[in-house]
Amino acid sequence: MSISMYSASVPVFVRQLGAILNWLDKAEAHATAKKFDTSVYLQSRLAPDMLPFIAQIRVASDASKGCVARLAGVEPPKFEDNETTFEELRQRVQKTIDYLNSVPADSIEGSEERDIVIPMRNRDPLQFKGEFYLKHWAMPNFMFHTTMTYALLRHNGVDVGKRDFLNVG
Amino acid sequence: MSISMYSASVPVFVRQLGAILNWLDKAEAHATAKKFDTSVYLQSRLAPDMLPFIAQIRVASDASKGCVARLAGVEPPKFEDNETTFEELRQRVQKTIDYLNSVPADSIEGSEERDIVIPMRNRDPLQFKGEFYLKHWAMPNFMFHTTMTYALLRHNGVDVGKRDFLNVG
Repeated sequence: MSISMYSASVPVFVRQLGAILNWLDKAEAHATAKKFDTSVYLQSRLAPDMLPFIAQIRVASDASKGCVARLAGVEPPKFEDNETTFEELRQRVQKTIDYLNSVPADSIEGSEERDIVIPMRNRDPLQFKGEFYLKHWAMPNFMFHTTMTYALLRHNGVDVGKRDFLNVG
Repeated sequence: MSISMYSASVPVFVRQLGAILNWLDKAEAHATAKKFDTSVYLQSRLAPDMLPFIAQIRVASDASKGCVARLAGVEPPKFEDNETTFEELRQRVQKTIDYLNSVPADSIEGSEERDIVIPMRNRDPLQFKGEFYLKHWAMPNFMFHTTMTYALLRHNGVDVGKRDFLNVG
């Protein structure tokens, strides 16, 4: 088999989102051991003008479902960004995984040359071809927010390591 | 053109390493404005038992050249991890980019099924096929360390944003 637009997108997103579910378990165990409420994590930030933990997970969710939907040429499901608890964040991640797994592989295969338009807040929309968009925009952006999620937990003392990040072997 | 093992590896690594060069420039400008020496960044960490800034860049360098060399079935060049200044870190990143660009595309194309063996410190070596290794191990690991590099600069007040991370458009 050759690497393909589907194989390079959905399975990577799904594995990494699954890793986040494991980190949330470890974060919850850490909070229980140290006797603080998991809600403390939600507004944790690495800098005052960075997104907090809860938003890092929401954006990772949006980045993956937006990418896969755009490559498939369909509208992604809209999630409300109304989570207030760890359990609701878990459900958000799981809903994202379920959506990604529901997109037919053949709707993404061959999307290398598909025109992708990304609306921007304060500038003209960005225009990419599908392959460039996946490799140089959507995937790095997704990895950015998953790594920031991990970084915030690690910064707050949660016992996660590289194997938890990679979620392989 | 279809996405391929070469197109999904070297250009992604090269773009992201190029982004790091830009962040180093911004970090230097920040240090100058705030009147501290850039050497302060080098040992900056997000947690006491995490790798410091200087090591995050070295590992990003190693992760990319190791991946590309393994996919091509050649030995990667060994870099000595002896950088002590920002300028030497810049050279390390540039040397990595130059190496990646020197690897012939056709030595990486078709490496989906190549057997990849990763020696581990305290356990049996990991064994992957080339495509799995690129997508689920090498690329996420590389993105992890580049994001941590960015996170440390951001945490230290450097004026970098998502556009600097993505280095696109």
